[in-house]
Amino acid sequence: MNWRGIQRLIGLLLGFYSLSFIPSLGLSIFYADGEAVHFAIASFITGMLGVVLWLPVRRDQSELRVRDGYFVVALFWAVLGVVGAIPFIIGLHLDFTDAIFEAISGFTTTGATVIQGLDALPPSILYHRQQIQWLGGMGVIVLAVAILPLLGVGGMQLYRAETSGVTKDEKLSPRIMHTAQILWGIYFSLTVACALAYLAAGMDLFDAVGHAFATVSTAGFSTHDASIGHFDSLAVEAICITFMILGGINFAIHFAVWQRRDPRRYLKDPEARAFLLILAASGLFVGLSLFVAGAYLGLGESLRRALFQVVSVMTTTGFGTADFSEWPRHVPFFLAMLAYVGGCAGSTAGGIKVVRVILLAKMGSRQMFALAHPRATVLIRLGPRPVPEEVVYSVWGYYTLYLMVAVILTGGMMAAGLDLESAFGATTASLNLLGPGLGEVASSFATVNAPVKWLAIFAMLIGRLEVFTLLILFTYAFWRQ
Amino acid sequence: MNWRGIQRLIGLLLGFYSLSFIPSLGLSIFYADGEAVHFAIASFITGMLGVVLWLPVRRDQSELRVRDGYFVVALFWAVLGVVGAIPFIIGLHLDFTDAIFEAISGFTTTGATVIQGLDALPPSILYHRQQIQWLGGMGVIVLAVAILPLLGVGGMQLYRAETSGVTKDEKLSPRIMHTAQILWGIYFSLTVACALAYLAAGMDLFDAVGHAFATVSTAGFSTHDASIGHFDSLAVEAICITFMILGGINFAIHFAVWQRRDPRRYLKDPEARAFLLILAASGLFVGLSLFVAGAYLGLGESLRRALFQVVSVMTTTGFGTADFSEWPRHVPFFLAMLAYVGGCAGSTAGGIKVVRVILLAKMGSRQMFALAHPRATVLIRLGPRPVPEEVVYSVWGYYTLYLMVAVILTGGMMAAGLDLESAFGATTASLNLLGPGLGEVASSFATVNAPVKWLAIFAMLIGRLEVFTLLILFTYAFWRQ
Ligand SMILES: [K+]
Ligand SMILES: [K+]
Repeated sequence: MNWRGIQRLIGLLLGFYSLSFIPSLGLSIFYADGEAVHFAIASFITGMLGVVLWLPVRRDQSELRVRDGYFVVALFWAVLGVVGAIPFIIGLHLDFTDAIFEAISGFTTTGATVIQGLDALPPSILYHRQQIQWLGGMGVIVLAVAILPLLGVGGMQLYRAETSGVTKDEKLSPRIMHTAQILWGIYFSLTVACALAYLAAGMDLFDAVGHAFATVSTAGFSTHDASIGHFDSLAVEAICITFMILGGINFAIHFAVWQRRDPRRYLKDPEARAFLLILAASGLFVGLSLFVAGAYLGLGESLRRALFQVVSVMTTTGFGTADFSEWPRHVPFFLAMLAYVGGCAGSTAGGIKVVRVILLAKMGSRQMFALAHPRATVLIRLGPRPVPEEVVYSVWGYYTLYLMVAVILTGGMMAAGLDLESAFGATTASLNLLGPGLGEVASSFATVNAPVKWLAIFAMLIGRLEVFTLLILFTYAFWRQ
Repeated sequence: MNWRGIQRLIGLLLGFYSLSFIPSLGLSIFYADGEAVHFAIASFITGMLGVVLWLPVRRDQSELRVRDGYFVVALFWAVLGVVGAIPFIIGLHLDFTDAIFEAISGFTTTGATVIQGLDALPPSILYHRQQIQWLGGMGVIVLAVAILPLLGVGGMQLYRAETSGVTKDEKLSPRIMHTAQILWGIYFSLTVACALAYLAAGMDLFDAVGHAFATVSTAGFSTHDASIGHFDSLAVEAICITFMILGGINFAIHFAVWQRRDPRRYLKDPEARAFLLILAASGLFVGLSLFVAGAYLGLGESLRRALFQVVSVMTTTGFGTADFSEWPRHVPFFLAMLAYVGGCAGSTAGGIKVVRVILLAKMGSRQMFALAHPRATVLIRLGPRPVPEEVVYSVWGYYTLYLMVAVILTGGMMAAGLDLESAFGATTASLNLLGPGLGEVASSFATVNAPVKWLAIFAMLIGRLEVFTLLILFTYAFWRQ
């Protein structure tokens, strides 16, 4: 391990992050909501921490290697979760567990909350919550598109011609920084476009920016308890659906579309195509289920509610416009399964990712075909390109591990006192970075006990770091040598 | 397809099966319970059906091939489910759905029931129910040890040196008949031993034979509503645990033990060893959970209840001695997960099977290891022998398909009206051939509606036929050519 390099990087990160409290501080002064001094303290603590870490190793020129990468990535989210929680502790007087939960939930773009009564919160705290998500989204597109493939983890590696992204002594930083700049440009542009659209649809500037942060990052915190349902506007819902979908698509595809000025490239990408198809088919299925069950009056209203919820869940954003509890029982379960599928690799969405599910389906049908026709050999393709067998099988491993984690978390939450439905809902909501769950955690995690919250925090980190990246730190093999 | 060969085989099967009603008929006369004429009718219908099918093709000498095998195997269970249901229809006046459910539940050794008030049933009908399970167990050890490996499906193929069992034009019958005779000898001996032990522990002859049928076949029907709890005897429970475990171990290992007169071979088999280890660890975990939660008075009592339930669930027998509903919430969920693991390949138990779970765990840790040490290559071994990569990956496919089926069944049962816990419980109980579920189906399927029952029937057949064998019949690739 290159401890000095890691320390330097985390120090730099904290230094930069201390600046992120400034907009909240400014807003607090503007709204005179009394939080300004809290944000000043948070910024000072974070900055000092950064300086203290950075100073002794500031001249370190060593490069981080792949093994350091795993550790740094996990540390990024954990450290930012702690310092991002400071305003919740000193401003809102949340206890330690709740504050960490709220911050990690934001940074991982999960959007599950322990706070009830959002409409009454100081605006600067509300803004801080929204901004945390947006910064988390910035972090994750770089993680997913640029960093994890270099570590040999993550759905994006499936797009690469080489089978394994791991070259042991590869230098991480130069490639990552270049890619990051492009991705952040796209992310920033999408956010601005989304905020402008919300403004045009009638939101005030505060809500428009706050919800643009939460939409493009597919994180789903809202500044209102009623979430997007608060606005009760078809235009807002349409904008929200559009930008949730864009947030759920691979940012590398966004880049290709932008570079060639050719939106048809979305449909040329097999993953984005499947993603849109599943959204449309699921919207239709849920809409018809609602219509048949008579939960809403007409077919149009049923389809509108259904499409919003399907997009919100599959992109793992977690915004709401309707109350699930009156919907037919198989619909919430179906939506939960969509959350397990999740969005595209290289996006801000959570879940197993569409590309992996495509490969799982292709492997399943290949295995069936092989039983009937034992002599045939079939290559698995993604678009025109065959996928190396090694990569194909790594998807099976990922899926297996993901579900094992889900089962253990569900069991753990039941041991901590939740009933089956709530435990399943809480695991689904946290592991897939969705936010809202089922049963007791249908709208918030406010009423569950601390062990459940810590399990959910762990689940959010696992989900955000694509399982392997976090779990590998707990293996003997990683620390040996 | 060799339709004539298939018709001849099914005709023969029905002819033989018509004889199986004779013991019930005799018992009915002995107990004068008024069912004798019903069994005579059932026997006559079944025999006639067999003759009608067999007569026109009786001179057919053609051999069945692998593709015919899939179809025949599925047909065996479906056809016996229908004729085995006759006494339930004309004797107990169950409706068609309930009768088929009860018979398929028996033949697949699931042991889920739609009948309430067992203690008041005519003895001959009770005996018929017990015997169905025992015959189903006879069927399945031959299916699992001799037939499925030839078809290239099933956990037992993992034991073979060759990667694939499918040689397209291999003749099926001679090898199968020889293996079947040996396996049935072992199965019969275990049943006799179990019945004698139950007798010695104080059961009457009727209960001893009936419960021996249900124990060795790991099917779990009882002649009493209170199941094994009815006897409230430590001796009965100890015998039951012993023979459930024996029923859950690969019959090929039983054969090796018997052949060499060396019980240490059980511990030399990596699957049986893991099976026993998981049982012991799980018994301890559940026992301590019960003790800590104070559900039972002492540590001894807690461990006794726990061990029985752990063995009953993991061998997918489904006998009960206690009421789950007072147990801590994570325990029923943990037990459900044990049912998904299931017993050993080549046994009468259901579930994914221990050997596949071992390989899944080894694959998972190998993948973790590979991320930390990308240059190392690690072979996966089962005991001393490396497992071919092709087989290793087929396990992943099996697991994926199995869980997808579980998810779809759960969703389907929720669409049919069950709540999440009951739907999860009903799927767990039927797909893994366990029997008792959770929630509404905790003790029986009597109160659920017909669509749920048919989904459960389908699940039992899928579980019994190791998923691929049944699902392949619904693929285009199978019927083409
Ligand atoms: K979210
Ligand atoms: K059973």
